[in-house]
Amino acid sequence: MTQAITTQNQGKISTVKGLKCKECGAEYEAKAIHVCEFCFGPLEVAYDYDALRRSVTRESIQAGPNSIWRYRAFLPVETENPIDVGTGMTPLVRANRLARRLGLKKLYIKNDAVNMPTLSFKDRVVSVALTRARELGFTTVSCASTGNLANSTAAIAAHAGLDCCVFIPADLEAGKILGTLIYGPTVMAVQGNYDQVNRLCCEVANTQGWGFVNINLRPYYSEGSKTLGYEVAEQLGWELPDHIVAPLASGSLFTKIYKGFQEFIKVGLVADKSVRFSGAQAEGCSPIAQAFRENRDFVQPVKPSTIAKSIAIGNPADGIYALEVARKTGGNIESVNDAEIIEGMKLLAETEGIFTETAGGTTIAVLKKLVEAGKIDPEETTVVYITGNGLKTQEAVQGYIGEPLTIEPKLDSFERALERSRTLERLDWQQVLV
Amino acid sequence: MTQAITTQNQGKISTVKGLKCKECGAEYEAKAIHVCEFCFGPLEVAYDYDALRRSVTRESIQAGPNSIWRYRAFLPVETENPIDVGTGMTPLVRANRLARRLGLKKLYIKNDAVNMPTLSFKDRVVSVALTRARELGFTTVSCASTGNLANSTAAIAAHAGLDCCVFIPADLEAGKILGTLIYGPTVMAVQGNYDQVNRLCCEVANTQGWGFVNINLRPYYSEGSKTLGYEVAEQLGWELPDHIVAPLASGSLFTKIYKGFQEFIKVGLVADKSVRFSGAQAEGCSPIAQAFRENRDFVQPVKPSTIAKSIAIGNPADGIYALEVARKTGGNIESVNDAEIIEGMKLLAETEGIFTETAGGTTIAVLKKLVEAGKIDPEETTVVYITGNGLKTQEAVQGYIGEPLTIEPKLDSFERALERSRTLERLDWQQVLV
Ligand SMILES: [Zn+2]
Ligand SMILES: [Zn+2]
Repeated sequence: MTQAITTQNQGKISTVKGLKCKECGAEYEAKAIHVCEFCFGPLEVAYDYDALRRSVTRESIQAGPNSIWRYRAFLPVETENPIDVGTGMTPLVRANRLARRLGLKKLYIKNDAVNMPTLSFKDRVVSVALTRARELGFTTVSCASTGNLANSTAAIAAHAGLDCCVFIPADLEAGKILGTLIYGPTVMAVQGNYDQVNRLCCEVANTQGWGFVNINLRPYYSEGSKTLGYEVAEQLGWELPDHIVAPLASGSLFTKIYKGFQEFIKVGLVADKSVRFSGAQAEGCSPIAQAFRENRDFVQPVKPSTIAKSIAIGNPADGIYALEVARKTGGNIESVNDAEIIEGMKLLAETEGIFTETAGGTTIAVLKKLVEAGKIDPEETTVVYITGNGLKTQEAVQGYIGEPLTIEPKLDSFERALERSRTLERLDWQQVLV
Repeated sequence: MTQAITTQNQGKISTVKGLKCKECGAEYEAKAIHVCEFCFGPLEVAYDYDALRRSVTRESIQAGPNSIWRYRAFLPVETENPIDVGTGMTPLVRANRLARRLGLKKLYIKNDAVNMPTLSFKDRVVSVALTRARELGFTTVSCASTGNLANSTAAIAAHAGLDCCVFIPADLEAGKILGTLIYGPTVMAVQGNYDQVNRLCCEVANTQGWGFVNINLRPYYSEGSKTLGYEVAEQLGWELPDHIVAPLASGSLFTKIYKGFQEFIKVGLVADKSVRFSGAQAEGCSPIAQAFRENRDFVQPVKPSTIAKSIAIGNPADGIYALEVARKTGGNIESVNDAEIIEGMKLLAETEGIFTETAGGTTIAVLKKLVEAGKIDPEETTVVYITGNGLKTQEAVQGYIGEPLTIEPKLDSFERALERSRTLERLDWQQVLV
């Protein structure tokens, strides 16, 4: 059971040693399993870091494709022909106007709202999971999703020619449902919240022989998020930031960015450095933030009620690991309410021209809250992870962003409207000044 | 008036010679003008190609940023610090599944549905136009838009800290209106079609002193589309394709891709080769396709009526130049109806996992029509330009892509639904076979 897998594949040796239980350390072959049979702990991919240190350099990475697959040696697949639809290498934007507004000096946005192909960080994890699913012989892939994952699984399965069946809560945003159906998968809309969807999928995974990207393929899937760590390090000129702020749903993204940074240190691609990890939740679903606040080492499940549906996981699988990372790095975990989330979306759009979904609004609002509480040093190089696109959650801002000025196609109609809007702006300013 | 501008800027010499009338050849300084004062022809940027040949190599381009600005020497700006929000370098996807479906062998999709920051090719032209607007001293930027251009102008202006006022037809898709308002510009919704919006903006441009990206800044703006030619050449390994298919709205995109290829040949970056140019229009607004069919050398304006609103320009400014390119390269210009456009969107999504807007559906449907008519050789390396994202035109496909199967969060409810859906699929197949 502890046998290492060194696969000879087109002349290259795989760097994957196998799976390892995060709790008791038991080792397993790299199959479609995700839970330790001794202690029920989650399984994680283990690598041969000596082999990685010997074979990977900054130059070898830079010579790779302009996608997450430039880091293939750090990802749990054997093939030299992964499913590459341009996922990853999204911009790291120097956010000077937002920084000035908040009183920070070195702020960056890692913008996965424009990730390819479906505009969220989920394209990273799904590209890895489906590549591995194909290697393991699955012909049907599936997932339990809050929306973005369904979009991504359906799209990348279509590109790869895999059959696909996705499970979503029935009350999802219209853009996420339509943005899944368009690719032609089977879509199961479950009358319940995400945690109920997830429980159902665990049962289905046992009966259908499908590859569920975030259940039986979860150890491979979740490794895809490490690329959000690698890319930031590379884009900062092979240096780590001082502080990162990221949303918390299951907690997996957060812990995998941490793992990514640690791996780059371990194999000598970046200098050792401690990075503070701060997490963002929506008040209406903030079990990890509550545990952090109350200094608990367990996460009490909650029933979600927030507009930030994509991160509304009441029973987060990796919550305790996210807590651990925030605590040991000197970070924080905060939550914000729905009104603050909308303000966060508007603030990012108006200062940086980035339209993010509710999850991104949550992260920006938490960034603001942390700055105001003195929990981010203005001198720190801070990277904020924006994980999804605002076009998918249009309902959330409708009614909060004003309306167009309707005019006739005539110069005087335009001039009257412009005058009216300037008068309104002046009145707004006078109210601000009073 | 014919004085060349060789600007010394941070040690680099600009390669822009000035503006030149496309009709009579009169030369002008590179100011905010767009019409020849002698013959009313459109002005275009002229370059010093000898200087370009001496100073630009494949290696110097590849050492540049991963955005359109790697081609800065071919773009009409002086600054070494352009507005760079990661625009461009979108994936060129080898579309094997779509190719098989159509009976082609070497088909590629240039996927600007995931262009940054606002998911259409307009981010290219706006990045160039606003960089030039800033150089020319404008503090307010504006545009006449069918939607994508408004999104892009508002977003990039927000990032750059420029004031912004955009003009759109009042009946635009919800996603395009909301996807503009979020950035906080002034939005004028004009009760009329795009051609009326455009006429109004020409008047406003004369009275307000604003930089209209597609009016008084049009010579700079339109050059941004050349990068869609450069990138395809670079991504094909510094080779030109045999055939390209692109949508036609004003006709500018089409002619600028052509110009991009010609420039790369001229300065020796790619080998000389004739590339066939085919154009796509929606039947409900197909003045250029009509002129092509009837072998006319003028374009008769029409009143648009189609779901493909982003390309619904009834009086296309560069229509005659697009006609000329299609004819002299041995290409074709075709149109398809709204039902075919929706089928095109679905076909691309189901085979390649790419969700495009109605304009992209038009282009795919025209591709299919041309293949079926024997007007694309299966052996030709064909590149199809997808220019915008489907999340912005959700109305178009709503009702045509099926519905989720609603189930309770219970295994037996799922199993019954799955059985039902498989029975339906079997019935579908039986009908196909009958
Ligand atoms: Zn264990
Ligand atoms: Zn002239």
